Amino acid sequence: MIPQARLEIQKERVVCHTRVQRNVNLEKLQNGYLFPEISMHELQHIRKYPDAKLINLGIGDTTEPIPDIVAVSMAEYAHALSTVEGYRGYGAEQGNKALRKAIAETLYKDVQVKDSEVFVSDGSQCDITRLQLLLGSNVTMAVQDPSFPAYIDTSVIIGQAGDFEEKSGKFGNIEYMNCGPQNNFFPDLAKTRRTDIIFFCSPNNPTGQAATRQQLEELVKFAKENGSIIIFDSAYAVYVTDDSPRSIFEIPGAKEVAIEVSSFSKFAGFTGVRLGWTVVPEELCFSNGFPVINDFNRIVCTCFNGASNISQAGGLACLSSEGFMAVCSVVNYYKENAKILLETLASLGLKVYGGENAPYVWVHFPGSKSWDVFDYILEKTHIITVPGSGFGPGGEEFLRMSTFGHRETILEASKRLKNLFS
Amino acid sequence: MIPQARLEIQKERVVCHTRVQRNVNLEKLQNGYLFPEISMHELQHIRKYPDAKLINLGIGDTTEPIPDIVAVSMAEYAHALSTVEGYRGYGAEQGNKALRKAIAETLYKDVQVKDSEVFVSDGSQCDITRLQLLLGSNVTMAVQDPSFPAYIDTSVIIGQAGDFEEKSGKFGNIEYMNCGPQNNFFPDLAKTRRTDIIFFCSPNNPTGQAATRQQLEELVKFAKENGSIIIFDSAYAVYVTDDSPRSIFEIPGAKEVAIEVSSFSKFAGFTGVRLGWTVVPEELCFSNGFPVINDFNRIVCTCFNGASNISQAGGLACLSSEGFMAVCSVVNYYKENAKILLETLASLGLKVYGGENAPYVWVHFPGSKSWDVFDYILEKTHIITVPGSGFGPGGEEFLRMSTFGHRETILEASKRLKNLFS
Repeated sequence: MIPQARLEIQKERVVCHTRVQRNVNLEKLQNGYLFPEISMHELQHIRKYPDAKLINLGIGDTTEPIPDIVAVSMAEYAHALSTVEGYRGYGAEQGNKALRKAIAETLYKDVQVKDSEVFVSDGSQCDITRLQLLLGSNVTMAVQDPSFPAYIDTSVIIGQAGDFEEKSGKFGNIEYMNCGPQNNFFPDLAKTRRTDIIFFCSPNNPTGQAATRQQLEELVKFAKENGSIIIFDSAYAVYVTDDSPRSIFEIPGAKEVAIEVSSFSKFAGFTGVRLGWTVVPEELCFSNGFPVINDFNRIVCTCFNGASNISQAGGLACLSSEGFMAVCSVVNYYKENAKILLETLASLGLKVYGGENAPYVWVHFPGSKSWDVFDYILEKTHIITVPGSGFGPGGEEFLRMSTFGHRETILEASKRLKNLFS
Repeated sequence: MIPQARLEIQKERVVCHTRVQRNVNLEKLQNGYLFPEISMHELQHIRKYPDAKLINLGIGDTTEPIPDIVAVSMAEYAHALSTVEGYRGYGAEQGNKALRKAIAETLYKDVQVKDSEVFVSDGSQCDITRLQLLLGSNVTMAVQDPSFPAYIDTSVIIGQAGDFEEKSGKFGNIEYMNCGPQNNFFPDLAKTRRTDIIFFCSPNNPTGQAATRQQLEELVKFAKENGSIIIFDSAYAVYVTDDSPRSIFEIPGAKEVAIEVSSFSKFAGFTGVRLGWTVVPEELCFSNGFPVINDFNRIVCTCFNGASNISQAGGLACLSSEGFMAVCSVVNYYKENAKILLETLASLGLKVYGGENAPYVWVHFPGSKSWDVFDYILEKTHIITVPGSGFGPGGEEFLRMSTFGHRETILEASKRLKNLFS
């Protein structure tokens, strides 16, 4: 008889590897994607404290029911698919005309975006990947630091990022535009290297800060001078309370230098339903004068087959006047949450940012490692947050708290945080 | 006053181009994507004959209502999203556990695919793009010629394809495996150059031919000898009538060399609902022994955010025993269509292939250009087909006819074709 150990060695030997080399870009990706990483910590915590009542202020995931009018529209559309009259097969890759029109007319009324410039998608994260496919590996890019990890991760995957430098925690070819309390969360553009692409998210995830009109005017001017393209992520636009722009296209001339990606996820609780859009203005051209919109259209037609028609029916309902009021009332509920959490943390003497124009609160713990603070809060209060360093080296010393949640959860979280920090 | 003409020149001059270079890979793409191209011909035809009753046997788009049991599941799920108990936000990027399990247990029961090897997607075209992102620009690839255009187009976009050679109509770095009547629609592997990746679709789009067990055994052996990865597209598996394999994993050893992409589109009429899946076996490794599934998981988590939860509820209903019977009865309806069209064309003395294991009929017009035959049939019968050359140089002289459609449409098309060719 062959002993078990030897059998296992033999078994390992017969595993047949292909001769296909692993993609070097994927080898360069750092750690896991942030949120699965946090889930692992969560799982360990649950094993340690199986009876603890965990509160999740981590991933920014909507919690409140979708308004009736929107859910009913989707249910009716789905039901009609079983009838001869209501059945629909492939739709246009770019999205249904009625929805493109409603997005242009409802959300971009004052800035005159055309229906044909709106591309409906299954969410902004997916469109960020499609934009990277559009741009290819030879462009250079800048991001806010900290920022939503998908910008850098997709840049690494497509091959733009260069090598990761352990010491700085940065990729060599990416320009990190530090945004923190010291510069009012807006990069020092005089010291920013010229890049082809500038990813810019406002209201910002994770800092919760919205750029002012003057700041965005500066950004557009900077992009024009440098011949750069801004990819403006406005996924949280509906959370803006003050007079900060809700779209980059509110800035004169932005159509010649900017693309906007956005989403129904946080706007209408569609995180699981999946729906978003991207605006590519006709005016935007590559250096040879070729319109960017033509290439994006080609990418959408080749690499994507349209968002679910049921989700699109829901999107259309969100943009009816009654639907819009209903989804905004859910947004206001989350904003009230943000206010509660913001006031609690401020009352404890913590340095808190964001929360007024975004569903995120950004808390500074000077001198501390953000994963340490994350673990400390989890251990002591059973609250999941997000360590700021997960958003880039500029997020070190910070924690992001999501203010999505049922009211009683936010109140309970506030209570636990008060107990811990007072 | 400045004359109008001069004003317009001035206007043109002030258009500001960015300094971002157009992606060279996108410059290399040939023509438009096939189906939008056909739509242009269709539009011109409608302008010329506004009263003609057009029949569309072009794009393979499902036409029959989704079975009640499936539509009701989606409607109920959508409706429940408006309740506290039924609301769901982000799901797992890889798909809901119950659906992954149902796919593994219902569709891969005999070949022991694990739930964790199934990745739910918004359709196979989107997953083909994600697989290209996984593989990167440094791999070489082979495709059946003719083949579904997305394989080559996404290869060009990611940068694998090399330069297009006008004379041959081929990209320099892609190995075109000719499949036609002369080789029983299976490539001569002895003459096929070794590549890292082999895209293989069976039952095939556009030829409608399913590879036999013996042919797929040869293919797996070839991949093993060459250390290649097969990307097997089984989107039409449910149309198999004879004993051809419905999955590449029916071939012993395939898990060490193959990935399978598939879809609910043609299986359950989900072309507009959007749902598919990809199976990446744990056994499949890159040359350094790194499991491909780990990198694909990372791509899915970074570049995708899961398929719509409503669509997933529909997918689950399709895989219940009652749902499965219901969707199969729709498939049988399309198969009956295929039989009608196949018999009609054969009775006219045309050389016809496919139609028995797939919803496509592949018609040979020796000595003719396929776009010419396309235009001729459109002009004379008002029937839209697909010119075979749209699927690669190996499709020249052929037309693809889709057999999706209401029965009366297929009968009317048969009548018109009889009038034209008899």
